[in-house]
Amino acid sequence: MGMTFTSNVLKDGLSRIQREIDAAFDAQLPVPDDMSASLVEAMRYAAIGGGKRVRPLLVASVAELHNGSREQAVRAGCAIEAIHVYSLIHDDLPCMDDDDLRHGKPTLHKKYDDAIAVLAGDSLHALAFDLLASPEMSNDPAVRAELVHALASASGHKGMAGGQVMDIAAEEAGGDLDLHTITRLQQLKTGALLGAAVEMGAIIGRVPSEGRSHLRNYARDIGLAFQIADDLLDVEGDEEAAGKALRKDDAAGKQTFVTLMGAEQARAQASALADQAIGHLSAYGSEADILRELARFIVERDR
Amino acid sequence: MGMTFTSNVLKDGLSRIQREIDAAFDAQLPVPDDMSASLVEAMRYAAIGGGKRVRPLLVASVAELHNGSREQAVRAGCAIEAIHVYSLIHDDLPCMDDDDLRHGKPTLHKKYDDAIAVLAGDSLHALAFDLLASPEMSNDPAVRAELVHALASASGHKGMAGGQVMDIAAEEAGGDLDLHTITRLQQLKTGALLGAAVEMGAIIGRVPSEGRSHLRNYARDIGLAFQIADDLLDVEGDEEAAGKALRKDDAAGKQTFVTLMGAEQARAQASALADQAIGHLSAYGSEADILRELARFIVERDR
Repeated sequence: MGMTFTSNVLKDGLSRIQREIDAAFDAQLPVPDDMSASLVEAMRYAAIGGGKRVRPLLVASVAELHNGSREQAVRAGCAIEAIHVYSLIHDDLPCMDDDDLRHGKPTLHKKYDDAIAVLAGDSLHALAFDLLASPEMSNDPAVRAELVHALASASGHKGMAGGQVMDIAAEEAGGDLDLHTITRLQQLKTGALLGAAVEMGAIIGRVPSEGRSHLRNYARDIGLAFQIADDLLDVEGDEEAAGKALRKDDAAGKQTFVTLMGAEQARAQASALADQAIGHLSAYGSEADILRELARFIVERDR
Repeated sequence: MGMTFTSNVLKDGLSRIQREIDAAFDAQLPVPDDMSASLVEAMRYAAIGGGKRVRPLLVASVAELHNGSREQAVRAGCAIEAIHVYSLIHDDLPCMDDDDLRHGKPTLHKKYDDAIAVLAGDSLHALAFDLLASPEMSNDPAVRAELVHALASASGHKGMAGGQVMDIAAEEAGGDLDLHTITRLQQLKTGALLGAAVEMGAIIGRVPSEGRSHLRNYARDIGLAFQIADDLLDVEGDEEAAGKALRKDDAAGKQTFVTLMGAEQARAQASALADQAIGHLSAYGSEADILRELARFIVERDR
């Protein structure tokens, strides 16, 4: 595939959704003229600009495949991105990963303080569910409830947050983990939310639950590929391009796909997973090219 | 009314809902046999036992007034209590109020650590919406979506979290705030979630939105009374009975209802608000006695 990931389909798709998500956050977060202004400013600082918006692109692309509404997909994409952004804000806190840089600018607690970072994260968390449950999301309350359920179950203790705790425990355990455990951990930490993105696109596209297995398989494979690529980026990436601190896994003595398999095999594995993900899209024609290119982009990105 | 608040109606109602909420958290949070066990143990430590469960009692009592399902009310009560508990966990963190004691035992970050406290709070936050949006909540997706919307909008930046930031700003502003600003702040910080509890009871009891104004007025009045009572408790309460640190407002030089009105007038105001709240229930007979007694209890409690 080579540089296919810079094709216009994906490049245009990413810049379109980036514009739409920035505009959605801007519209949802007018700064109030009262003492809570700093909270909303902090939410805006973290949420607007900078993100790749991979999860909203997944929502929108899957919805579009099944003729789902673009407006609904952007709103749901904004919700899942709010969850992603809140998790980064909390993850960057001194008591967690203690990071100073995110998307090439100071992390939220560096720009404001730890208390505002905790509360801005919590507020984006609530905003996500407010966006999905509000009547403006869809006339059909079943769609709203199903969207909330997909996102809440993927982000809580059985999903993303559970994976984060396992990640902390893995760091403390040092070199004692096997590939099976690391895979399970990453499926929760990163994979659950990417899976929710695809699921939400399917809900908006009214794909019945029993007709979603190819999409779920696609999500599972790109989720794992995404994390292997992240581990490779931590070892081999350029800090300036990434816009955040790297070489952190090694400094922490942490087991990752790269320490377990070596860089070369990890790269081969990520690439094989992208191929496998693309294989699950065989029922679609060129209208699924953006999802095919996204699978490639995920393993070849530099940030 | 004197000691009416220890009547059997309220006492039995509180101990019944306390048992039901503890049982609901216990059932929702089995400890998994993997590396995320410590997260679920931390969630259980914070969520099970100790709370007064005023918000779940409001949901259940309002639902019952309108023949709503008890099972639905307990599940929704568990969801709003999950939000309340997460907010206490985050509020107790060193970067926020830095409290060591809650319900007479070490706060979560003291028992575990700050990272687990952040993630257990986030996980209880997600659990709340998972409980409400799941098909097990109600056969009617409109009920599920409406419940999520009521809770998400009350807990985010336009509700509880917004009030918390205003509270921090108020502390920094020292003595510069007037009663109007303090009232608005407290209506968000405490009142929004109590209002959501009443709203959720009305949703489960299928009270149409236009028929809820007396319930909303009741909630508004007990919300303000609750906060004035909290301010009085901070000045006059017994730390052992309260199970947490007191005299914190004065130490922080913070404006409260008590500093602005004096203790005597604050007490009279809280009592008048309880009377006023009870006045909004005039359409109901003795079946609303528990809500009447709750209004009294809120201003006369010792913790």
